[in-house]
Amino acid sequence: MSNLSSDILDQLEQQAIELPSWAFGNSGTRFKVFATPGTPRDPFEKIADAAQVHEYTALAPTVALHIPWDRVDDYGVLRRHAEDHGVSLGTVNSNTFQDDDFKFGALTHEDAAVRRKAVDHHLECIDIMHATGSRDLKIWLAEGSNYPGQADLRGRQDRLHDSLAEIYARLGDEQRLVLEYKFFEPAFYHTDVPDWGTSYVQVAALGDRAMVCLDTGHHAPGTNIEFIVMQLLRLGRLGSFDFNSRFYADDDLIVGAADPYQLFRILFEVIRGGGFNHPDVAFMLDQCHNVEDKVPGQIRSVLNVQEMTARALLVDTGALRAAQQAGDVLEANRIFMDAFYTDVRPALAEWRESRGLPADPMAAFAASGYLAKIAADRVGGVQAGWGA
Amino acid sequence: MSNLSSDILDQLEQQAIELPSWAFGNSGTRFKVFATPGTPRDPFEKIADAAQVHEYTALAPTVALHIPWDRVDDYGVLRRHAEDHGVSLGTVNSNTFQDDDFKFGALTHEDAAVRRKAVDHHLECIDIMHATGSRDLKIWLAEGSNYPGQADLRGRQDRLHDSLAEIYARLGDEQRLVLEYKFFEPAFYHTDVPDWGTSYVQVAALGDRAMVCLDTGHHAPGTNIEFIVMQLLRLGRLGSFDFNSRFYADDDLIVGAADPYQLFRILFEVIRGGGFNHPDVAFMLDQCHNVEDKVPGQIRSVLNVQEMTARALLVDTGALRAAQQAGDVLEANRIFMDAFYTDVRPALAEWRESRGLPADPMAAFAASGYLAKIAADRVGGVQAGWGA
Amino acid sequence: MSNLSSDILDQLEQQAIELPSWAFGNSGTRFKVFATPGTPRDPFEKIADAAQVHEYTALAPTVALHIPWDRVDDYGVLRRHAEDHGVSLGTVNSNTFQDDDFKFGALTHEDAAVRRKAVDHHLECIDIMHATGSRDLKIWLAEGSNYPGQADLRGRQDRLHDSLAEIYARLGDEQRLVLEYKFFEPAFYHTDVPDWGTSYVQVAALGDRAMVCLDTGHHAPGTNIEFIVMQLLRLGRLGSFDFNSRFYADDDLIVGAADPYQLFRILFEVIRGGGFNHPDVAFMLDQCHNVEDKVPGQIRSVLNVQEMTARALLVDTGALRAAQQAGDVLEANRIFMDAFYTDVRPALAEWRESRGLPADPMAAFAASGYLAKIAADRVGGVQAGWGA
Amino acid sequence: MSNLSSDILDQLEQQAIELPSWAFGNSGTRFKVFATPGTPRDPFEKIADAAQVHEYTALAPTVALHIPWDRVDDYGVLRRHAEDHGVSLGTVNSNTFQDDDFKFGALTHEDAAVRRKAVDHHLECIDIMHATGSRDLKIWLAEGSNYPGQADLRGRQDRLHDSLAEIYARLGDEQRLVLEYKFFEPAFYHTDVPDWGTSYVQVAALGDRAMVCLDTGHHAPGTNIEFIVMQLLRLGRLGSFDFNSRFYADDDLIVGAADPYQLFRILFEVIRGGGFNHPDVAFMLDQCHNVEDKVPGQIRSVLNVQEMTARALLVDTGALRAAQQAGDVLEANRIFMDAFYTDVRPALAEWRESRGLPADPMAAFAASGYLAKIAADRVGGVQAGWGA
Repeated sequence: MSNLSSDILDQLEQQAIELPSWAFGNSGTRFKVFATPGTPRDPFEKIADAAQVHEYTALAPTVALHIPWDRVDDYGVLRRHAEDHGVSLGTVNSNTFQDDDFKFGALTHEDAAVRRKAVDHHLECIDIMHATGSRDLKIWLAEGSNYPGQADLRGRQDRLHDSLAEIYARLGDEQRLVLEYKFFEPAFYHTDVPDWGTSYVQVAALGDRAMVCLDTGHHAPGTNIEFIVMQLLRLGRLGSFDFNSRFYADDDLIVGAADPYQLFRILFEVIRGGGFNHPDVAFMLDQCHNVEDKVPGQIRSVLNVQEMTARALLVDTGALRAAQQAGDVLEANRIFMDAFYTDVRPALAEWRESRGLPADPMAAFAASGYLAKIAADRVGGVQAGWGA
Repeated sequence: MSNLSSDILDQLEQQAIELPSWAFGNSGTRFKVFATPGTPRDPFEKIADAAQVHEYTALAPTVALHIPWDRVDDYGVLRRHAEDHGVSLGTVNSNTFQDDDFKFGALTHEDAAVRRKAVDHHLECIDIMHATGSRDLKIWLAEGSNYPGQADLRGRQDRLHDSLAEIYARLGDEQRLVLEYKFFEPAFYHTDVPDWGTSYVQVAALGDRAMVCLDTGHHAPGTNIEFIVMQLLRLGRLGSFDFNSRFYADDDLIVGAADPYQLFRILFEVIRGGGFNHPDVAFMLDQCHNVEDKVPGQIRSVLNVQEMTARALLVDTGALRAAQQAGDVLEANRIFMDAFYTDVRPALAEWRESRGLPADPMAAFAASGYLAKIAADRVGGVQAGWGA
Repeated sequence: MSNLSSDILDQLEQQAIELPSWAFGNSGTRFKVFATPGTPRDPFEKIADAAQVHEYTALAPTVALHIPWDRVDDYGVLRRHAEDHGVSLGTVNSNTFQDDDFKFGALTHEDAAVRRKAVDHHLECIDIMHATGSRDLKIWLAEGSNYPGQADLRGRQDRLHDSLAEIYARLGDEQRLVLEYKFFEPAFYHTDVPDWGTSYVQVAALGDRAMVCLDTGHHAPGTNIEFIVMQLLRLGRLGSFDFNSRFYADDDLIVGAADPYQLFRILFEVIRGGGFNHPDVAFMLDQCHNVEDKVPGQIRSVLNVQEMTARALLVDTGALRAAQQAGDVLEANRIFMDAFYTDVRPALAEWRESRGLPADPMAAFAASGYLAKIAADRVGGVQAGWGA
Repeated sequence: MSNLSSDILDQLEQQAIELPSWAFGNSGTRFKVFATPGTPRDPFEKIADAAQVHEYTALAPTVALHIPWDRVDDYGVLRRHAEDHGVSLGTVNSNTFQDDDFKFGALTHEDAAVRRKAVDHHLECIDIMHATGSRDLKIWLAEGSNYPGQADLRGRQDRLHDSLAEIYARLGDEQRLVLEYKFFEPAFYHTDVPDWGTSYVQVAALGDRAMVCLDTGHHAPGTNIEFIVMQLLRLGRLGSFDFNSRFYADDDLIVGAADPYQLFRILFEVIRGGGFNHPDVAFMLDQCHNVEDKVPGQIRSVLNVQEMTARALLVDTGALRAAQQAGDVLEANRIFMDAFYTDVRPALAEWRESRGLPADPMAAFAASGYLAKIAADRVGGVQAGWGA
């Protein structure tokens, strides 16, 4: 007998989580990137791996691309390759942090020629979006400075607006610009879009199809992230999530691995604010599987999001509102945590089976021999990573 | 021979820093409030103490009030008392954190009757502002919750807007509402105005005379505060500073005592953004002299701000811009730090003397015997503090 | 059918968590202490309240005292009062932060007369321990400084050793000294025992019966607390826990309320290191029920510890070790989190009933009418709090 | 007329700061390593660059090596090369974070064969030390885990002891083992030596010639680093500093660039504790010049340390002690900050000239044309970086 109602299961059935192509390539720290046998050598192999996640979970129907890492000669071919594997191409991510010209900025650079190059890169991304059928252009700006005095903070902010305005003007009517913020790294003194407030004022100055991307690992220690989720939904500007988790900085660990209760609170606010299964709010992963296997790392991640969403949907919101209105702190907290502590895994396993999916996707994938197969097949070539 | 040009000295001559009346009363931590002989027993004595700071420095011509701590029968009398002591009454600060009714919120409370009471308190503050000739109503909201689930974050945010709108509507044409944000404390899970972004979107929804107050101690660890200064000036919404300093949380130490270089960077951005000696941007102190003497603690503070402003004005902005444009990181940083490391104290002492002020205000005040005098005079009564 | 084996239940049956007497008095922040009807007015009423927690949970057989807050004329009477209520008196906590003489330190003070007074206070505590039958003298030092230069860090550390040595020498053969550390507050620049390392080197210099107390809220942001648990157990110096939880600083929230998974990891390391149900390691609460009811707040807390201990005992340590040895990151993490996600609450409820306890202690206590009774009975007098 | 006494100048004349060979190679973040023309291609060119720093400042007579990055066929040749350039070889740093075998640990690994390999690497380092004439073996352990459950924290700690003991046993009588700690990175859940306490207990278990290395960037946010300096000096275990600075995590910026006042406080405690110019306490740099030029970046760094040491030596310790003993907080802080705010740069420039050094080493180096020369000369080959 399931503890998940059919209404909850219906909502879960619509859940979709976009995978980042780069999660299937090698990643690491500045100290070392460990390689793994079977790592994809090109965007086609990344998509093949991503499709495995969807096959075992029915949770990950789209794959985000990163340009230039995923540049191919013919995006139509890549699109059909994805469709052949049962997935679609999703968000296109730009890159302004790996070209030598961008050492001191890109969209914010002092030099108009460098800004031109950076804007043009985004226009190319929009062209690719038309070819891939992507809706969203996601911009994470690594720009900033390392030393006080190095940069004129205010001038950069103004130039950022100008650059974004030109990019925004090029979007198709159904396309969106999503601006990510990040507390720090790779810049160590100032970052040009360091917080949700800056991302919000920049996108609000562009137009209705400009939104904020919230990466759960991009905040100062102690930040109440669910509060930001609430506020951005209230302002109608929450465009997407980059899910991952962290103990310290931007650790990019598996979502839900560091502080599961925080993930629960975030998903509760998404539901509370009408953002769950709403087209405005894209769920995406952005993780680095530095030491664990990549495909099962992504399977684990989408399952974590699904399980926690189920728990968040279990909150008895009527009783919770009554306790809140009565000022009954302990009862309100009890109702809230009761959902969190409910074990939804057996019910989800049963439900998966009823839909022709494996009850335990991790075990089923392990049993499939896929990792051994790609290790054997993918010999030679250069393993994909964050290389430009 | 001074290292401060006459242009810099002219700018410094206009500098004004508002003192908080409550800095002269007792303060402490939740563990203990230490009392000191001579502590004021009423608003009149607080203002007398504040006037000492101005007498020795010519830097602190106004005193902020806190209601209800500074309630008096006749504000006209208090106003004349201030003028007799050579100072004026300034910003009026409201208090929604010490009434039992406000245990679970005030402007955000679930209960309309409690919100009514909280709004009415602010309307009373506006009435007082008319009597005192104050321009600014400063609102720091201690509201929030201690446990996940305890409060409906979104509903509170909406109610906050409604309450603020009613207060804002009551302001006179020359008056302003300034909304302070704070990362945490006294609420330990969520705070209703936790960051500059929330304060900004709330005041932007009110009108042109609603502004943000930036308290330098109210941020997450590692936050780049000067970036926020830049952004709020760019958005035309930086209404005031609450200066203090901190090593950990909201420590409320003497401004410039914990990280002098951060204060330098903040003041540089104020100047860069046109906020120095601009009527929109009020400089205020908000400190707690828990273990040090209060009047000299305030003298030390305004001198710290003055000295650091002098250093920030010394930055060779032409050379700095050239180095920034050239991408010369080390030279830009050198120019920036050169101003910081310049010892402006002798030139300021000389300049003070030329204006009939003591070269060393701390020493002159100590020699005045004022502290011994108030310790002898102020016998009996109840020492002022944060009591409701 | 329970998911908790009889072996696990046997271990849980021995679990004991000491309650702090002060949790039943009023507490708050520096901004406001909210009062509640029925709050105890003396140590006898605090113990009566604490006994309620034990009555409904069988988890809290002892109550810690705080001197001078819990000073009585005859500790024998207090001891019998406790026994009459089914509990015993436990750890004695000293207080060196509320006497005016201790404004600049106590055990570390520059002035030998002040140190004498502070040491004598601890000798009095040891005398009380003989009367109450307490084993542990717990010392939390609020000492430190607010401004760089204010204090000589090194001299204070040496004086601390001398003071502690004199106190240690006075202990009975079965008694222990337990030294707590805290990152900051009430001192805002330096704290004399700020981290486990300092507490460790100080107690190691005293002798075998000096131990470290780990308060789960007393660390820098991001600190891996379970690592410290492991290290102190390895060194044989983990004397006790002060359980609570926090989002920001020393918030003193209900244990398990902020980051339940962290509590799980801590308890796992306690078990791993042999510290569970070991006489060396005392489990205690140290929380402030600022906005929630106090007796049910403590019931919730001991239940949280019990439930999380059950989950930690569920970890399949054999399988975990195999996965660790195989370098199977995802499988090791899965085994670990599987225990965390298991819902132990039904099995615990059933087990409670089998022992003659209420299945739901929170509901049973609420139904008892105790809070209404004490609100009606305890009229007049001064409510207990942190007053000296 | 100098504000630096001859006694202070005599002390400054003895100051020596060791440079890391790797500071002259390329470094960056996980996102990008920017290359610069003229970057050394081998250890010989690194040493030539390091010698420039000493030539212009007389502050940096030794260069630390990193194995395997600085492996050469004949260390005698490298030693003579250094001497020919006016410098000596210093500390040898081991590397256990870039070999694929060390993905899950090295000195702590579950597998005895991997531990053997890691220990052997250190034994090789000791052999190199004999050839280079180095006194110190510095061990920074990148070891840890990314996910709870992945590793057995306790077992790793015990294995760490065993491995270190074997390495320690191999040291010559005049050689030392210096163990560095780090809060996090590259491991994101647990790090095996995360804090000074762990480093201290590990080295204390080895013997008198095992010491702690304090890297100023390796602490949790808010940590009072000068307190740790005081404590390690008190315990006789402060072996060396890795100087750098940070705003967020381990940013590895130029020392003194982020929080100059913190550097002042640290150096004051070094002097207070007898660690200045004491053979036990080695001053070293460990920085990453990601965006600025490397040789002038190092010159700037040693000058920053020198200037701040001069300020710290200026503190009027007699007056400070008197103010501390009198409990005069404001006066003690004033005395302390007075030294910090004193501009020592003109006096140091004059003193440098009197010793035949350039008054402005940064300008003199820039005028030398060295950077243009190495950019022209060092064509072809592979630029040195953190590559294994």
